[in-house]
Amino acid sequence: MSQTVFSNAETFRPNAPVPAPRFAGLPRLNFVYGHNDPEQVPAAELADCAAKVLAENGHLLGMYNLGQAPQGHDRLRQFVADKLGKRSGIRCASDDVLITSGSLQAMDLINALLVGPGDTVILEEFTYGGAITKVQKLGARVVGAPLDEGGIRMDRLRAILEELRSEGVRPRYIYTIPTVQNPTGSIMDLGRRHELLALSREFGVPIFEDECYADLVWSGERPPALYGLDPERVIHIGSFSKSLAPALRIGYVVAPWDVLGRLVASKTDAGSGALEQMVVAEYVTREFDRHVDALRAGLGAKLAVLVDAIEREFGTAAEIFHPKGGIFLWLKLPDGVDVRSFAQAALDQGLAFNPGPDWSCDPEAAKSHMRLCYALPSEGVIREGVAELARISFEHTGVPARSANRARA
Amino acid sequence: MSQTVFSNAETFRPNAPVPAPRFAGLPRLNFVYGHNDPEQVPAAELADCAAKVLAENGHLLGMYNLGQAPQGHDRLRQFVADKLGKRSGIRCASDDVLITSGSLQAMDLINALLVGPGDTVILEEFTYGGAITKVQKLGARVVGAPLDEGGIRMDRLRAILEELRSEGVRPRYIYTIPTVQNPTGSIMDLGRRHELLALSREFGVPIFEDECYADLVWSGERPPALYGLDPERVIHIGSFSKSLAPALRIGYVVAPWDVLGRLVASKTDAGSGALEQMVVAEYVTREFDRHVDALRAGLGAKLAVLVDAIEREFGTAAEIFHPKGGIFLWLKLPDGVDVRSFAQAALDQGLAFNPGPDWSCDPEAAKSHMRLCYALPSEGVIREGVAELARISFEHTGVPARSANRARA
Repeated sequence: MSQTVFSNAETFRPNAPVPAPRFAGLPRLNFVYGHNDPEQVPAAELADCAAKVLAENGHLLGMYNLGQAPQGHDRLRQFVADKLGKRSGIRCASDDVLITSGSLQAMDLINALLVGPGDTVILEEFTYGGAITKVQKLGARVVGAPLDEGGIRMDRLRAILEELRSEGVRPRYIYTIPTVQNPTGSIMDLGRRHELLALSREFGVPIFEDECYADLVWSGERPPALYGLDPERVIHIGSFSKSLAPALRIGYVVAPWDVLGRLVASKTDAGSGALEQMVVAEYVTREFDRHVDALRAGLGAKLAVLVDAIEREFGTAAEIFHPKGGIFLWLKLPDGVDVRSFAQAALDQGLAFNPGPDWSCDPEAAKSHMRLCYALPSEGVIREGVAELARISFEHTGVPARSANRARA
Repeated sequence: MSQTVFSNAETFRPNAPVPAPRFAGLPRLNFVYGHNDPEQVPAAELADCAAKVLAENGHLLGMYNLGQAPQGHDRLRQFVADKLGKRSGIRCASDDVLITSGSLQAMDLINALLVGPGDTVILEEFTYGGAITKVQKLGARVVGAPLDEGGIRMDRLRAILEELRSEGVRPRYIYTIPTVQNPTGSIMDLGRRHELLALSREFGVPIFEDECYADLVWSGERPPALYGLDPERVIHIGSFSKSLAPALRIGYVVAPWDVLGRLVASKTDAGSGALEQMVVAEYVTREFDRHVDALRAGLGAKLAVLVDAIEREFGTAAEIFHPKGGIFLWLKLPDGVDVRSFAQAALDQGLAFNPGPDWSCDPEAAKSHMRLCYALPSEGVIREGVAELARISFEHTGVPARSANRARA
């Protein structure tokens, strides 16, 4: 084809991405992305809810935001406020809740408000990959706060804050996933939450709290959200992607009006999809607790299958971080293994996992780690996938040398 | 309240907006925003469609994008491609269609790809207010191309392009709403469309074509879309907001892969709401043509009421731009009138209209204009609202001096 205005790179901004590859279908053995369990989507109940809300209030779709506040559908915001009160120790009114098109839109809006080129942001050393790339795309520097099984190590965080202060740098925020941390699956205990808030106060740094997985804690028990402990210095986000269905794009932000009002002013998309908000409001008002209990049980069973398969196929070669809830498992192979050495080969054979480096502020620090998401694959696919993973890993790295108590050749 | 991290302006980026005001409800006499006619939302049919697609495919909501391509729901993209073929003279495949969360997300993604600080963009002199503010927010300069009843004046556009070239400036794009122009309601004829494409070729400037209102042409007849005439230099966007319901956030982009693939790579929101896409795909596949015919008839009737009310209340003081379709009417009061002098007073009395300056690249050039949206208000509200408008305008400007053939005092 001849040169066109769009084949000329100068037509685009210097930072424009290259075109995405054409979609070639999902991998057969799929352990990536926050998919949920399709068999646990309450399709029949959602159908009933949709029919009801459309029959009763479908005409409201003729108005942007159903003619309601730009924060989103009244009834859904009220449910979120009530749920956060009951489950997360947060006291807020429905007007303090902004519904977003998934929690990713919330992250984009919050980043646009707080982060620019040359800024510094503190993330957990291992964290959601999108949280890293979104900040980097804005030209900001990422500093990773070390984690242990209890979440952020506060002594190390203090040292980071002090060092940045000595450089004259005030970080734009500390981003944390305190309740079912992504990817380690830990829960920050109450003591550390108070320590974190004290550091936030001392250094004048806002906290950006992401609780997308908090409704999926195995024990059902968790400390109050950071926002619940101190609403004046925390921006809280959550989602129904993990507790209901990810293709329904419904996330939310709770924050003081100094923040929320600016997010409302920045959200120039004329509102998030109102039909999804109406249907979800109806469903969760009826069924949320019961649904989440059943979902947790199902996910727990899949996790047990995954752990069993890893132990069988990898034996002592795999260090498993047992998650306290959620949909993913973080594991570590021996130090000599670089999972990037076989990630593409695995993908070519229909097996996808998240290489640790994509989920780490310092990629090299997680070269032997990987994240396996287990909500989507069936138990059979989990077993087959882990066996394939061991086979491919062994081919490229010699690890695991033994599977199911037999030496690999 | 004591000083908190969020009451400190330094917490936010320098360009962050101030907090939005709290929502106080819609104005009673509401002639703003692209609302549709609530009575024309096919609520019962949408309920039936929702129940069907959820019963059949609700489990797919467990996967981001329903497990389909990142461009959006297969079936909806196929409908868009077929519709554009039938109605707009566009030949494209479903893979050339990207579903967005309303056309506003499409605009944001396209602007992010093409426009940055210091750039220049050509818009129609009177145009969608959001198109102006979005570009200005990116730090770019807006140049308005003069319009007449046939759309952009090509002689004047050539002069602008030549002048910019002499300054060494290549505009990032020419944004046009060729079919039911917002706000003038004109349709660009085929000859001018070819001239516009020739200018695009000669000056190497892409065209950004917005056809959000194109399915609502009174006559049902319109020239081919610019994209249909030359897909190599046009980015085409459209929406179901105006043809179905604005609270369903479903827009779309059609563009060559050099553009679309970059938009897909830029769209990091994990997909637009899939339930809305499924429901709309089912509905439009069944009913689109029939629905749009009925909607047009209803909107045409409301327009007739509006025109009659304006003629009655304003007489010769109002110059009406009779729209060829759509949901809004542009009108002009005598040159001495500045509609900004009574816009706030009207709002305080529950009457909202779009002051011309908000819809104009050069605000002063439209100080005597206003845009009245007529899809939402009932016929009674239209009559009452226009009478109120005349009364308030007279109070502040002395225009119109006569209403219903009687002198105002």
